[in-house]
Amino acid sequence: MHIEIQRNSETSLSKQIFLSIVDHIRSGLIPQGSKLPSVRELSKELEVSFVTVVKAYKELEKGNFITAIQGKGTFVNSEETEIEEIDEDFPFNWHLSIQDYIPRAQFSRFHHVPGEIQLSSSMIGPELLPNRYLEQEIHKMLSENPRILSQYSEIQGDYNLREAMSQYLKQFEVPTTPDNLLVTNGTQQGLDLVARTFVGPGDVVVMESPTYPGAIDTFRGRGASILTVPVDREGMTVDILQNLCDKYKPKIIYTIPTFHNPTGAVMSQKRRKKILEIAKSIQCIIVEDDPWGEIYFDKKPPTPIKSMDYYGHVIYLKGLSKTLAPSCRIGILSASGSIFNRLLAAKSNADLGSPLLTQKSLLPFITSKKMIDHMKKLRTALKVRRDLTLNLLSQYAPEEISWIIPNGGLNIWISFPTWIDTNQLLMEAKKKFVTFLPGSACFPVEQENHHIRLSFSYMNEQQLQKGIIILCNIFNSEITSKKMKNNTPYF
Amino acid sequence: MHIEIQRNSETSLSKQIFLSIVDHIRSGLIPQGSKLPSVRELSKELEVSFVTVVKAYKELEKGNFITAIQGKGTFVNSEETEIEEIDEDFPFNWHLSIQDYIPRAQFSRFHHVPGEIQLSSSMIGPELLPNRYLEQEIHKMLSENPRILSQYSEIQGDYNLREAMSQYLKQFEVPTTPDNLLVTNGTQQGLDLVARTFVGPGDVVVMESPTYPGAIDTFRGRGASILTVPVDREGMTVDILQNLCDKYKPKIIYTIPTFHNPTGAVMSQKRRKKILEIAKSIQCIIVEDDPWGEIYFDKKPPTPIKSMDYYGHVIYLKGLSKTLAPSCRIGILSASGSIFNRLLAAKSNADLGSPLLTQKSLLPFITSKKMIDHMKKLRTALKVRRDLTLNLLSQYAPEEISWIIPNGGLNIWISFPTWIDTNQLLMEAKKKFVTFLPGSACFPVEQENHHIRLSFSYMNEQQLQKGIIILCNIFNSEITSKKMKNNTPYF
Repeated sequence: MHIEIQRNSETSLSKQIFLSIVDHIRSGLIPQGSKLPSVRELSKELEVSFVTVVKAYKELEKGNFITAIQGKGTFVNSEETEIEEIDEDFPFNWHLSIQDYIPRAQFSRFHHVPGEIQLSSSMIGPELLPNRYLEQEIHKMLSENPRILSQYSEIQGDYNLREAMSQYLKQFEVPTTPDNLLVTNGTQQGLDLVARTFVGPGDVVVMESPTYPGAIDTFRGRGASILTVPVDREGMTVDILQNLCDKYKPKIIYTIPTFHNPTGAVMSQKRRKKILEIAKSIQCIIVEDDPWGEIYFDKKPPTPIKSMDYYGHVIYLKGLSKTLAPSCRIGILSASGSIFNRLLAAKSNADLGSPLLTQKSLLPFITSKKMIDHMKKLRTALKVRRDLTLNLLSQYAPEEISWIIPNGGLNIWISFPTWIDTNQLLMEAKKKFVTFLPGSACFPVEQENHHIRLSFSYMNEQQLQKGIIILCNIFNSEITSKKMKNNTPYF
Repeated sequence: MHIEIQRNSETSLSKQIFLSIVDHIRSGLIPQGSKLPSVRELSKELEVSFVTVVKAYKELEKGNFITAIQGKGTFVNSEETEIEEIDEDFPFNWHLSIQDYIPRAQFSRFHHVPGEIQLSSSMIGPELLPNRYLEQEIHKMLSENPRILSQYSEIQGDYNLREAMSQYLKQFEVPTTPDNLLVTNGTQQGLDLVARTFVGPGDVVVMESPTYPGAIDTFRGRGASILTVPVDREGMTVDILQNLCDKYKPKIIYTIPTFHNPTGAVMSQKRRKKILEIAKSIQCIIVEDDPWGEIYFDKKPPTPIKSMDYYGHVIYLKGLSKTLAPSCRIGILSASGSIFNRLLAAKSNADLGSPLLTQKSLLPFITSKKMIDHMKKLRTALKVRRDLTLNLLSQYAPEEISWIIPNGGLNIWISFPTWIDTNQLLMEAKKKFVTFLPGSACFPVEQENHHIRLSFSYMNEQQLQKGIIILCNIFNSEITSKKMKNNTPYF
């Protein structure tokens, strides 16, 4: 177990321990049914007082995460089975003595979880993706040149694909050449390359709160000190950002300015400029994540921050997995100068380059007019699903909840009263074979438990209708029951 | 620039600085033509004396890595152009103020370098790989089920592929189930997952010396303290390993026991047992890298260390890229218990899973009898190439050089007298459009410059013949000229 505590944090030590253990349990890093270290052991290991650990464990018990059994120890609760005795002769017991550097990997638990009605991961339904076209083009490409199968890609990525993407990015006014682009295994790897190259223990990273859970896992995994800036309807609040930057000189500002994940907010042009000015003034890097800027429902969003980036402050990440072919896992990273060189070195250490097959598979589609047409089609189809979802929510959702209307992207962010814990709601929803992303996964530091992210892009209209009505029933009955009990939540 | 120095090392501080800057230059992390920090700046940054830095810079100049220009500063030599003045207004100049965590990424510079006769990377010639079969199977798979293109893989890897690999690994007596396997982007990512999960600054990693350069880059990138154990004809010398382990309690022992890269050595059964005993006694992890155990030319090598691993000490990495389809970049990792769980969490943070397309592409071939037949065919074809290479060397190589006859794998390790620098030989070879891997890339700590690794697997017989004769001519003339000059080398 790897618990990091920061003694100069505004969060109390016991709450830090509580939050870290919750992260570990939700990530599956501490398996269900495991025995936690004793209070004595943990207080010694972390060099904190006995009382601090006792307080953290009490809160964990209140939150229904663990159970203390007199004379036996403290165990992580299990969803399926009763807590059993640990097998003392289990051959891998010694493993727990090996320290690791993975404080959190929570997103994986919610990423493409099977479920009959899957509203949890931001994916696009297969019927909306160009599988048949791609299949024919892959066949053509490989039958003409089967030797592609025996070749490695350049570490930086296939030159032709970089050339095609450099063309494609012109519509976003992102100035780039094939030499400035790096092909990654989805945006997640792009984020990971940035983190491993530029972030180490104690380096300050600023993130939006809430934000994309995969990014939290990645920066936390490098031991970053994470500071958060709230998001409103115009995106990251720049006044707060300015204050933080003046005080803490972050190395990286991570933002999803266009159809923010999870809230859907679009950062205004004015704020985009301001963030770039701040980065310039403190000489820091902006990581701009753009997973679905093409998917707008009303007017086109402002161009990426990268389009104004003369001094090379912005590392721009463009995903193609979701909107084109998830099974190819292709993302593109654009950066300049020695920042780019070092990211390329990291890619070489990470995996020596993405598979050539997946890159060559997408190339004909991307270079053809089909790519632009496909994005148009997606905008139309997903607008229908968004509108349906909004209508259903207006009709069936309890009046205590609210949501932000997204003008693009794949998600709707829904907020409950603070006394509703959406992790509990998820357990209920799973019983009815419906899944969503609990908001707690999206908060880098202080977790809020009363939000959910609904993805409206993966299910067809019929499934959406069914799923949202089921969810609204669960919401209604939970709110009613909580009101009747007049319970207070645990934290 | 990121120079790590260890004050309690047996290597002098000036030599550490020298070696680190050489690594940076060879990795391309300091681009050719860049200006190095001044002696004053560097001595301040590293908190070492003026004299220490001056000494390191002098050695760099002697080694022809840098040039000091009176009144202007010290510049990294460039292969192509004369040192020019730095552009003071270059918009990315501020980038150099951003610290990174990539001390070395040298392997990328030698990995599939274009060259008419490519003896540098351990790849198998495309004419020996089953491209046509695979192409047909990919076509069949996708035309029957094009929706595969719109699906993500499980983070752990496609279940069917894990099942097939679990079957395949039975021939090596590696006891595993689909649940214990993780699909990676080639073995390189497997190594990287291990490093990011279990290695942090100051953790001790034991490596063979020489070893696979990609592994050095990865462990160095995590700030590991690297200790080395020499390799003889029976693999890692276990007596030295035992002494090191008693003294330093490493967290990880990294080994390539079967057809060691680069030397080709095969670790004896006795030593395999002994290493496992050592790991058990000090509770450490063994990382067993098995890129080409199938490719034996005489008798079958002993089964992997993993086959004896009752207590879950071994993380076993099996590559399929090289021997089957480089463009798919598929590797397999086998581990147990919570060590496995944590590696899976790391995979999720790294890229949320390998592409499904590449996994499904290989599945029919791996599950069919063709896989076993293909490996048989490779053994025969590569034995022919190895024998040809050995014959040519016996016939044309200067008597001052020696080599180890490999009984499997893709490489021959050749040693020169210590006064020959094979990095210089490479420059000569490139002029004649022939490439090889200079041995310096393979040493984790104390670099030896008088070896080369020749891969005999990528070129056909005709090209091999041509390439090796060219190389032998270069070797002969370099040795003759060095003898005549009676020069001493620079370190």
